[in-house]
Amino acid sequence: MRDVAVIGVGITKFGELWGKSIKDIFVEAALKAIEDAGVDHIDSMYVGAMSPGLFVGQEHLGAVMADYLGVTPVPATRVESACASGGASFRQAFLEVASGASEIVLAGGVEKMTDGADVTDVLATAADQEYEVYHGITFPGLYALIARAHMQRYGTTREQLAAVAVKNHRNGAKNPNAQFRSEVTLEQVMKSTMVADPLRLLDCSPVSDGAAAVIVASMDVAKKLGKNPIRVIASAQASDTIALHSRSDVTILGSVVNAAQKAYKMAGVKPSDINLVEVHDCFTIAEIVVSEDLGFFEKGKGGEAVEKGWTSIECNRIPFNTSGGLKSKGHPVGATGIAQIIEVYEQLGGNAGARQVKGAHIGMAQNMGGTGASCVIHILEAK
Amino acid sequence: MRDVAVIGVGITKFGELWGKSIKDIFVEAALKAIEDAGVDHIDSMYVGAMSPGLFVGQEHLGAVMADYLGVTPVPATRVESACASGGASFRQAFLEVASGASEIVLAGGVEKMTDGADVTDVLATAADQEYEVYHGITFPGLYALIARAHMQRYGTTREQLAAVAVKNHRNGAKNPNAQFRSEVTLEQVMKSTMVADPLRLLDCSPVSDGAAAVIVASMDVAKKLGKNPIRVIASAQASDTIALHSRSDVTILGSVVNAAQKAYKMAGVKPSDINLVEVHDCFTIAEIVVSEDLGFFEKGKGGEAVEKGWTSIECNRIPFNTSGGLKSKGHPVGATGIAQIIEVYEQLGGNAGARQVKGAHIGMAQNMGGTGASCVIHILEAK
Repeated sequence: MRDVAVIGVGITKFGELWGKSIKDIFVEAALKAIEDAGVDHIDSMYVGAMSPGLFVGQEHLGAVMADYLGVTPVPATRVESACASGGASFRQAFLEVASGASEIVLAGGVEKMTDGADVTDVLATAADQEYEVYHGITFPGLYALIARAHMQRYGTTREQLAAVAVKNHRNGAKNPNAQFRSEVTLEQVMKSTMVADPLRLLDCSPVSDGAAAVIVASMDVAKKLGKNPIRVIASAQASDTIALHSRSDVTILGSVVNAAQKAYKMAGVKPSDINLVEVHDCFTIAEIVVSEDLGFFEKGKGGEAVEKGWTSIECNRIPFNTSGGLKSKGHPVGATGIAQIIEVYEQLGGNAGARQVKGAHIGMAQNMGGTGASCVIHILEAK
Repeated sequence: MRDVAVIGVGITKFGELWGKSIKDIFVEAALKAIEDAGVDHIDSMYVGAMSPGLFVGQEHLGAVMADYLGVTPVPATRVESACASGGASFRQAFLEVASGASEIVLAGGVEKMTDGADVTDVLATAADQEYEVYHGITFPGLYALIARAHMQRYGTTREQLAAVAVKNHRNGAKNPNAQFRSEVTLEQVMKSTMVADPLRLLDCSPVSDGAAAVIVASMDVAKKLGKNPIRVIASAQASDTIALHSRSDVTILGSVVNAAQKAYKMAGVKPSDINLVEVHDCFTIAEIVVSEDLGFFEKGKGGEAVEKGWTSIECNRIPFNTSGGLKSKGHPVGATGIAQIIEVYEQLGGNAGARQVKGAHIGMAQNMGGTGASCVIHILEAK
């Protein structure tokens, strides 16, 4: 496999974008990425999206977006892995360039969630339809089960869950594209509306519209363009049981453990070499579990780590979700994995403004689908 | 890029499989492919499916199928390009092995269409939701427009359209996995119920359940397993406008022309080198247009070619849809592209039984989505 780099990025504001269609926002992000990269063409493109069929009545999103972007006849394929669709889209672009089949590939992600569909029902199609959803459980309930088990097993507290939301809103307040640019206090999180005990409203990522795109290219192309490329030093993916009840221990996300091991091996790095991490905090408990399963903290100590501030930008031990994460930045599901790559890219390029992590050289993006039935991890390195 | 081969295949019967779930049929096809290839593991897998969210309320099909197949934690990704989802799934597996990232990858496709969804509405999500579907047109109508234009421009006749169905049913009658193993006469096609003038019921591919899977591997692995590999000598894909009204000439499928040019170049072959072709005959007119746009017949002469029998197995000038095609074999949309690869594989291996094309050495599979907004073409060669 040959070396692959990210050479340009584009993103829309995340939020309730009622005045724009799914096509509008994807094209906006894609054009920004193409302009940012300074390329005059793309060889192919991928569109990560979880459920445009159920959200807006439109499948075949690869061709739709190639058409509206004005790049036909380039090959265009939609990739889906529930909320990890963006990460999966990036991985396919990486593999295509690494194979030598293409030089310049656009990897995008999009979701339009506020156009009228019953969002909780649509998202539930990422869980086991027959054995979970049919019996009435949806994602807040599934993650609440994980949270309860983690609290019981390791003594993780309600306050520690809330600390994730407080930190991520503090970061998101500094991100101009974030859906919620407002800080929240521990007390506000603790007193917000109960959704699925112990998870409250401010433990949950919001319903969002948004799109994100990056340009992936061979190192040769990056050099010719005079770009300062950010190299992709690892791309790894893993699966796990679709249903939570099939797992021997619901406090461990097996796909995260597996993908992380493969990613560290491929990159030749260990957790202590990583300078910042974007993780999939669809619920506050997810960030805590993932921070352990990625190997940054001992199992059961993720809650303590966030409470002590170790994952904050200010502490700079290992900053988590400097973008604001899914919690504050927003979670248009298909776009999330690409937005994570963009945050890492901006940080490694030293362009993260008020959110900049000092000395950021290697960064990781961890994107997952369902209750971790799929996980995609990428590690990027500044040249 | 390194050489890639198909080393094993598996397929279910196509039809109304009311007693089996989408998981049952995918796992059945995947296990057959794994057994046929004689491999003891797979490195990753792709699932081509158009709209499991709308058909059966289940997205996240990569992880779902990895779980039920019992292969977690292997990476598993769903790929969607409407009715070209199977071809796109195969292409991603090809790229992954060609890149060197994996040695053995399963490429599958599945659709469960008979579980109660309004099939015509679901399929219409492959067209332009805003500018076509919203105004009431669905695929039979769109292909009827193409048929009318082709008849007017080139003098293609109603009888020539019917000849496609007659030939494909004759072939499908010899395919044990086909949905309709019955021959039809020209008169039966001509007198069948009108669907969208000039297309009648027997001009349309049916609504089907089914799954198909193949094992793609590096040539090194193929040789170690002592397999007689069928090499993938071209993988090409192209897009076109999503809406029919955006095209300057609706009698030409631009994505087919583009993907074919790339495929011939990659393989270093020309149409006259190809011994058999599986094409996307979702409607009879599609086979005629595609046969021209692939370069097998002069533009406008596809109707005459099928009428004269040039695309029959018996004539063996250039047999089209020896499997029975979508028309007779059935069209579980996500599975179709993989089923085409399987027919080519069986033909090149000399294992097509009563459908065997004499001297088959190089074969092509052409899979498309919508009214050709996406097209994926593969060329395979016997060692």
